[in-house]
Amino acid sequence: MTGVPGELLAQTLAGVRPADPVALAAGRERQARLTKPPGALGVLEDVGTQLCGLAGTCPPPPPFPATVAVFAGDHGVHAQGVTPWPQEVTTQMVANMLGGGAAVSVLARLAGADVVVVDVGVAAVLEGRDGFAGLLARKVRAGTRDLSVEAALTRDEVVAALEVGILVARELVAAGTRCLLTGDMGIANTTPSAALVAAFTGREPAEVTGRGTGIDDAALEHKTAVVRAALVRHNPDQGDPVGVLAAVGGLEHAALAGYVLAAAALRVPVVLDGVIAGAAALAAAALAPDCLAACVAGHRSAEPGHTAALEHLGLTPLVDLGLRLGEGTGAVLALPLVRAAAAVLGEMATFDSAGVADASG
Amino acid sequence: MTGVPGELLAQTLAGVRPADPVALAAGRERQARLTKPPGALGVLEDVGTQLCGLAGTCPPPPPFPATVAVFAGDHGVHAQGVTPWPQEVTTQMVANMLGGGAAVSVLARLAGADVVVVDVGVAAVLEGRDGFAGLLARKVRAGTRDLSVEAALTRDEVVAALEVGILVARELVAAGTRCLLTGDMGIANTTPSAALVAAFTGREPAEVTGRGTGIDDAALEHKTAVVRAALVRHNPDQGDPVGVLAAVGGLEHAALAGYVLAAAALRVPVVLDGVIAGAAALAAAALAPDCLAACVAGHRSAEPGHTAALEHLGLTPLVDLGLRLGEGTGAVLALPLVRAAAAVLGEMATFDSAGVADASG
Repeated sequence: MTGVPGELLAQTLAGVRPADPVALAAGRERQARLTKPPGALGVLEDVGTQLCGLAGTCPPPPPFPATVAVFAGDHGVHAQGVTPWPQEVTTQMVANMLGGGAAVSVLARLAGADVVVVDVGVAAVLEGRDGFAGLLARKVRAGTRDLSVEAALTRDEVVAALEVGILVARELVAAGTRCLLTGDMGIANTTPSAALVAAFTGREPAEVTGRGTGIDDAALEHKTAVVRAALVRHNPDQGDPVGVLAAVGGLEHAALAGYVLAAAALRVPVVLDGVIAGAAALAAAALAPDCLAACVAGHRSAEPGHTAALEHLGLTPLVDLGLRLGEGTGAVLALPLVRAAAAVLGEMATFDSAGVADASG
Repeated sequence: MTGVPGELLAQTLAGVRPADPVALAAGRERQARLTKPPGALGVLEDVGTQLCGLAGTCPPPPPFPATVAVFAGDHGVHAQGVTPWPQEVTTQMVANMLGGGAAVSVLARLAGADVVVVDVGVAAVLEGRDGFAGLLARKVRAGTRDLSVEAALTRDEVVAALEVGILVARELVAAGTRCLLTGDMGIANTTPSAALVAAFTGREPAEVTGRGTGIDDAALEHKTAVVRAALVRHNPDQGDPVGVLAAVGGLEHAALAGYVLAAAALRVPVVLDGVIAGAAALAAAALAPDCLAACVAGHRSAEPGHTAALEHLGLTPLVDLGLRLGEGTGAVLALPLVRAAAAVLGEMATFDSAGVADASG
């Protein structure tokens, strides 16, 4: 990384601008001239118009090629027994993703999207090991501290992770990607997600803490108590997003927030996956609210905190099929819908061009 | 068409069988061994398992190549003013589809699906006209009679249209298609759809009649009254599906019902579009309930009758974005999700193969 720590973040925040109102109006006007009843493509029309506003042009450029960046990190709070999965599964799943056998690998291949896996905070040393070729080694720290007993990260570590996400987005767009998708891997990362969602939305821990990979009632009660105690201990101030991420966040959350901010600054759409991305987007929107012009909610996960995050952000999810896997799977499944929204504006005939009578004809 | 009228239908009905329980069990068992928490892919897992049961093998064959067959027809009830769109828009939109400018054309191109347009009942003569190259000319009748004053079709016409749908499905599968998608075009066709849904589900006309392309309150009240009066006049017997289709159906509805039945008999998945396909699937399921083993609900349209049909059939829609366009657009948008469901079973690593510890590990 070059430059003074924080400089890249400041530059990125300064580059985040709202949607272009002229292109938004052109998008709405074009939707009305296409050979379909007005509004008949529902949410797809909203997404297409949003892409116009982001790109500043109508029709919008195709959101393709697309890349899902999977930010991987570990969590000190794993020690509190918030999940039945051993921490080394983070490492094993990173290898599985690089080997092409993980769900996100399979779904991205089918959707024609690339996958990059970024080690921003895995506890184990992965660089140079067999099976980890292709991994982007950008580790800020070998996992967070245990947020239930101390701050998970320092402010400097948060800024460093935000800048990892910014640089990954910049590099991908420089290499030709025109749609960024969020992915994540980190055993226990629904726990910091719940804490972040509670901190940024003001909801109660019990409303936003979920079963993650599928824990039982007793485990959920324990997990919720851990989240509640952490919020009491740190009392995070939502007006200080870096401080919130430092208190109860994860390295992948901070990196994802940076990735979202960079996408917005670069005027490239970013398709959000589930609750980890939702928590990260809350942090990004707290830092620069206009970044939402670039955000498309890929899906709604089964985690209650995700719905709370989507409501707070005012985002409508495209896929709603009860997924709770993470990795970026919900974002990748939504990619064809985002591409469809752009293709409609770019390729459909108008009433005039096709010689079709409209309802007043 | 060869053979005695009704012979092909009888043969097809006899060929519709339930899902293979051994392959269903194998699908469920494989889902549990893939590198993800059990159930973490939600509805996608159910669809994948269903594809196993349909094909009789696990993993299931990829549902690709895929083709959307758009069955086009006109409706005598158009004379009652149930829609603001002129009837000739059916013809104009058929030309738009053949020319590649309609929504279904654009979305199918993006999804890699073929589109065939079948004239099973357009009022105008299309064969041989400029702009209609590629149209499958299978017209049974130049539009239905006005269901508000007489039966829309004779029983023979219904059987002929059912057999058009069966033959189209057979021809497509013989040519290599491995996933059939339903499409439709027919100005006024949400009116017979509402009548069919009411007849097969027993719901009140006011519960299942919708705004179609977007009519206002007064027009909706009139349309509902037309549907109610038709049901009173004909008093259709849901135990006689051919009779119901004859009384209040459309030629595209009957053809779509045949297409669904043939898909089931051929053990090829059929992705249903909106309320027209839903009404047709109710007829198909009344003729051969096991055809549901082949049916995937592509989406939930904004028409209230569609939700009623899906509930009656016990189908979960994959896309739910407030679309109300028809043409097959909702089915085509769901195709990547259906392909994803199969790819997960075919391509994901297992815990054993990837060396990933499971939650009990």
